[in-house]
Amino acid sequence: MRKLYVFDSTLRDGAQGENVNFSVMDKINIVKALDDIGVSYIEAGNPFSNPKDEEFFEKAKELQLKNAKIVAFGSTRRVGADVAKDKSVQVMAEISVDHVAIFGKSWDLHVTEILKTTLEENLAMIADTVSYLKSKGKTVFFYAEHYFDGCKNNEKYAMEVIKAAETAGASYIILCDTNGGCFPDEIYRWTELACKTVSVPVGIHCHNDTDCAVANSISAVKAGAEQIHGTFIGIGERCGNTCLASLIADLQVKLGYNVIPEECVKKLTNCARYISDISNLTLPENMPFVGKSAFAHKGGMHIDGVTKLPESFEHIPPETVGNRRQFLVSEVAGKSAILSKVKTFAPEITKESPVLGDIVNMLKLQEQKGYQYEAANASFELLVKKFLGKFKPYFHICYFKIISEQDASVDTPGCGVVKVKVGEHYEIAGDEGNGPVNALDKALRKALVKFYPDLESFRLIDYKVRVVDTTSATAAAVRVLIESTDGNDVWTTVGSSTDIINASVKALCDSIEYKLMKSQTPSKA
Amino acid sequence: MRKLYVFDSTLRDGAQGENVNFSVMDKINIVKALDDIGVSYIEAGNPFSNPKDEEFFEKAKELQLKNAKIVAFGSTRRVGADVAKDKSVQVMAEISVDHVAIFGKSWDLHVTEILKTTLEENLAMIADTVSYLKSKGKTVFFYAEHYFDGCKNNEKYAMEVIKAAETAGASYIILCDTNGGCFPDEIYRWTELACKTVSVPVGIHCHNDTDCAVANSISAVKAGAEQIHGTFIGIGERCGNTCLASLIADLQVKLGYNVIPEECVKKLTNCARYISDISNLTLPENMPFVGKSAFAHKGGMHIDGVTKLPESFEHIPPETVGNRRQFLVSEVAGKSAILSKVKTFAPEITKESPVLGDIVNMLKLQEQKGYQYEAANASFELLVKKFLGKFKPYFHICYFKIISEQDASVDTPGCGVVKVKVGEHYEIAGDEGNGPVNALDKALRKALVKFYPDLESFRLIDYKVRVVDTTSATAAAVRVLIESTDGNDVWTTVGSSTDIINASVKALCDSIEYKLMKSQTPSKA
Repeated sequence: MRKLYVFDSTLRDGAQGENVNFSVMDKINIVKALDDIGVSYIEAGNPFSNPKDEEFFEKAKELQLKNAKIVAFGSTRRVGADVAKDKSVQVMAEISVDHVAIFGKSWDLHVTEILKTTLEENLAMIADTVSYLKSKGKTVFFYAEHYFDGCKNNEKYAMEVIKAAETAGASYIILCDTNGGCFPDEIYRWTELACKTVSVPVGIHCHNDTDCAVANSISAVKAGAEQIHGTFIGIGERCGNTCLASLIADLQVKLGYNVIPEECVKKLTNCARYISDISNLTLPENMPFVGKSAFAHKGGMHIDGVTKLPESFEHIPPETVGNRRQFLVSEVAGKSAILSKVKTFAPEITKESPVLGDIVNMLKLQEQKGYQYEAANASFELLVKKFLGKFKPYFHICYFKIISEQDASVDTPGCGVVKVKVGEHYEIAGDEGNGPVNALDKALRKALVKFYPDLESFRLIDYKVRVVDTTSATAAAVRVLIESTDGNDVWTTVGSSTDIINASVKALCDSIEYKLMKSQTPSKA
Repeated sequence: MRKLYVFDSTLRDGAQGENVNFSVMDKINIVKALDDIGVSYIEAGNPFSNPKDEEFFEKAKELQLKNAKIVAFGSTRRVGADVAKDKSVQVMAEISVDHVAIFGKSWDLHVTEILKTTLEENLAMIADTVSYLKSKGKTVFFYAEHYFDGCKNNEKYAMEVIKAAETAGASYIILCDTNGGCFPDEIYRWTELACKTVSVPVGIHCHNDTDCAVANSISAVKAGAEQIHGTFIGIGERCGNTCLASLIADLQVKLGYNVIPEECVKKLTNCARYISDISNLTLPENMPFVGKSAFAHKGGMHIDGVTKLPESFEHIPPETVGNRRQFLVSEVAGKSAILSKVKTFAPEITKESPVLGDIVNMLKLQEQKGYQYEAANASFELLVKKFLGKFKPYFHICYFKIISEQDASVDTPGCGVVKVKVGEHYEIAGDEGNGPVNALDKALRKALVKFYPDLESFRLIDYKVRVVDTTSATAAAVRVLIESTDGNDVWTTVGSSTDIINASVKALCDSIEYKLMKSQTPSKA
């Protein structure tokens, strides 16, 4: 079990991804999550270029971390500058943390064409900066930027660069595929060469521009790299950095390396979801290991196989990484998938129960009407419970009316009114909103919250519409998916109709009924 | 330049991804797009298990494809069955296309534990099915399901399986990493062995469960595979199949293989966006090569470098694959992509035209409002022509009103009324429909057809809705895509608004205006 060390750059390289923007508090929360999962180094920002990062490093002093060291990021001194007077190097020398990462050029083209200086001066810039920071008591990581492109163009010079950094006192040399354009065989070859050239430990820092970042990083580990760089959920400049959630799982669960404490492996899924929530990004559902669909089975054959023998269609047990198996209910799924879902809320149903066949048939009819339950577990549970007579309605909608009057060029609010019956009581409420669906949503909640105060905390978080049979366009059936939350749980419901308003109301009602059922709320009527 | 062949399974394996559901018309559109980009084989469904697929294969007969062959997917005969009487094999024998793909087990564990039969019977099932279909004139692709897991467990038996398929007449042997759990070195080893074992061409079919599908496929190609399988944007069961957009770009642009016609490479980005729109899925922004952010630069250092020398932070020129560079913090935008689109209908505009910059800025503003023109060429053309003063309006909508009154449990028609102005004439028309959008569509056409009889032949064929900013659910902006036809051409328009009705009306008006513009219809007003 060779030991590897994880270096996460979510807060620095990750922050360079599109749509990514961390507050200081976000950064503190992410540091805690990464520490908790056993990451060794957390690169937390560039205090010279970003004042928000400076504030972070002040606050970070107070953090009590179990596993991780915080690293500050900066550059070498400028061309021709005196290292002791270079402002960016000074910030690094005075920073409150002991670990600093410094990047320098290792591709000759960058030296001559971007820095516009000589190859010798570049070596001096690196050596001066590293030895100066070392003399100030810092542990220095040296990023050999564009190392692999440098090797392709001028291998001898790239070696001089990493040797200069080592000689000057760098504790780690990080080999960067900065442009993300490399393949595993190239990474292997030049990582192996770097490991022969320097005697300090080597790290690998990849980007995903060829869709090979994870494979490239594994290739580097096999060639001798011991520090693996990336961002936990893969965010970063352009196509992102190496996704550490995938890489850690591959190396530790599948290839037997010792990467993070063994008891942390099952937290991988939660950690990825937590970081994506804080980053306000949607984690791709099909993300390996940690995505919602990573162990979701839809084909009937697959479901049948997994039920008989999990490894028949699962490369690892989902629990290993804290994820779980899902059977998607669809027209391609068979009885066993439906049974395993039904069992979660009606454990008395077995493979032999005659009612199971009826449920399957009812689902088929629903699918013909345009329903689809694979993403809508809450609607599925309600539907089956209603079918089994296990559901007592909380309210009835007597009618709803909506009126939209507008000049096509202006977005004026639509308005809606809805009448509900709860027990023997009636309530009518109206509201306006951005469009008829929003108006109805508001009116319905206004009417029901009088009976069910629990609905105060209820809100919609996503709304999707899909035409089911596209041959007749606006006259075709539409399927509406609504995702809701009460602050703790998140659930999804579905409605289908030829009328988008009706479909939305159905999904909305399911969502409210599900919430009321879960909280076992008695009505105040 | 070794020749490779692309086999796309978006419509079969891709349809097994969560939230993926294609109508027959969606399938036809995707087939055309894949054919257009030079894919060699398109696996279009499983006609035995899915009645919708049967309808597709009927319609597919009429398609005139330039590059691609359509392939039907099915299984071997059942355990102990007579192949000539096995229903699923019969469907394959009678299917309207010449190419069929049959999967069989190559992992001994699956044979004994899932099929619950003997290793000999499994070989007979494969041989019987392949030779029977071959005798019916079919070209047979044999999928060696779980080939790599089979090799790990019982290499000798896996070889017997692929030899049995070859001997029975299979034209291609496809090696599947069905569970997606393999790494490049394993793929290399057993692909090389397969190429030595059989003499027919070998294909590689990977899944992305270790985040290595693209690297695994490249590894197989290096070991001798000549057919590359996947789905164009990577959708599929669990973590998805190999993303062909990435794989094609890697192999052709970076590694020098001959994969698709050279002139098609620059269509990769558009094709990926088109397929994701039809699938009603959001293409991840950081997707390699084709994602919106794939060449987006945010770090100041990166922007400075790219400005001096593009290759300093770009592994390939973005235009190669039809994408464009973006600077996220500066005002500079990638003009060339826009120019090439504008030139198709306004050839007088050149790179130097000052108005080009204004168009770029206007498009940015539109994108902030939620518009996206990748799939909506008709709206793009209208927008730019209006901006250039080259468009004379055909009509003006004075107002529209819609009323929906319904009991939530019954789908009663909504109704709408619209007032239009054409020249100096006014016309008011009303109609009812399945939902407010359909009612408005009908009323609007009723009002306009008096002035423009050409609109008789006009109809909508698809209607899609997507929430653009999902943080506020039903109050967020929605983007509506409408596809229309007049029997000859098909065009797509887009509308965006916080109100779904307004967004629909905008897309609808664009569609009608585009039709009138194309037919140069003078008004009868």
